[in-house]
Amino acid sequence: MNEHVLSAELKQVIKTVENYPKPGITFRDVTSLMQDGPSFKKVIDAFAAQYQGQGITKIIGTESRGFIFGAPLAYALGISFVPVRKPGKLPRERISQAYTLEYGEDALELHADAIVAGDKVLLVDDLLATGGTIDATVKLVRRLGGEVQDAAFVIALPALGGVARLQALDLNIFSLVEYQGE
Amino acid sequence: MNEHVLSAELKQVIKTVENYPKPGITFRDVTSLMQDGPSFKKVIDAFAAQYQGQGITKIIGTESRGFIFGAPLAYALGISFVPVRKPGKLPRERISQAYTLEYGEDALELHADAIVAGDKVLLVDDLLATGGTIDATVKLVRRLGGEVQDAAFVIALPALGGVARLQALDLNIFSLVEYQGE
Repeated sequence: MNEHVLSAELKQVIKTVENYPKPGITFRDVTSLMQDGPSFKKVIDAFAAQYQGQGITKIIGTESRGFIFGAPLAYALGISFVPVRKPGKLPRERISQAYTLEYGEDALELHADAIVAGDKVLLVDDLLATGGTIDATVKLVRRLGGEVQDAAFVIALPALGGVARLQALDLNIFSLVEYQGE
Repeated sequence: MNEHVLSAELKQVIKTVENYPKPGITFRDVTSLMQDGPSFKKVIDAFAAQYQGQGITKIIGTESRGFIFGAPLAYALGISFVPVRKPGKLPRERISQAYTLEYGEDALELHADAIVAGDKVLLVDDLLATGGTIDATVKLVRRLGGEVQDAAFVIALPALGGVARLQALDLNIFSLVEYQGE
């Protein structure tokens, strides 16, 4: 399917919620997209078409909406799915990476055996805004010797800086829908 | 694939972590299963074979490991995926259902427009222990007029009571791996 046609279709099913989670914020809600079976399938199929035959060995999804797009893509490609989670959620030996939020700090964790040297990793998430969690996830993967050159998003909001921030980490950014301050 | 053969294969890749999340608890870790691409694919294919052609209209996954198995199944069947989430995570009009934990209470939420009367819903989660979150999820679906007769799990631990509890709610339980107090 033509990318522009798909993008326009997806914008029809992505609901916009004004003043959420707080006043002044325009929230793009992908739950209305995943609730639409044919649109959800088109998103995963578009990701699979983009990355099939690229030698990707593992998909990483970040807690928790990244799970909803990353896990089906891993299934479609027949490869490994690895969750990156909030602190205290993974049961075995893990590594941790702090990152900065608007107010304060948080961290993400990855099982120490989840990535091995030579793995070619694709990061998947629902939406790219400031890029803070994906930046931390790239660091986790590289600390374990994994190669990560690509990140895929349903939605990108370039005005919030995440696209530029991740390109500075040598990542190729693929997204299906962009909102340019609209 | 023969169910007993698949069950034995999956037990090889599900890691067991003793004394997690606290002393005396034996934790069955499905992250090691999803990290194994072929095994992860076999799980989703087995779920899809079980429910293909049954008229299921929506898959519900419960935050957050339920997302990792529910979303690929929705993709495989080409139908809607609906997340049930912890309080404060869904942006639009929602309904809430409290449930009891070992110490204290928690709640789960569902978008009010996510289920419509006549929907035939399948619940998916990684592991069935006491069944508290699935019990709450059944109540949410039924309050919105949805029909729910089936729940699928990678792992069931019948000794912890969840299988009997959900059968008392008229649910058919399907699981790929059972541990009987071993």
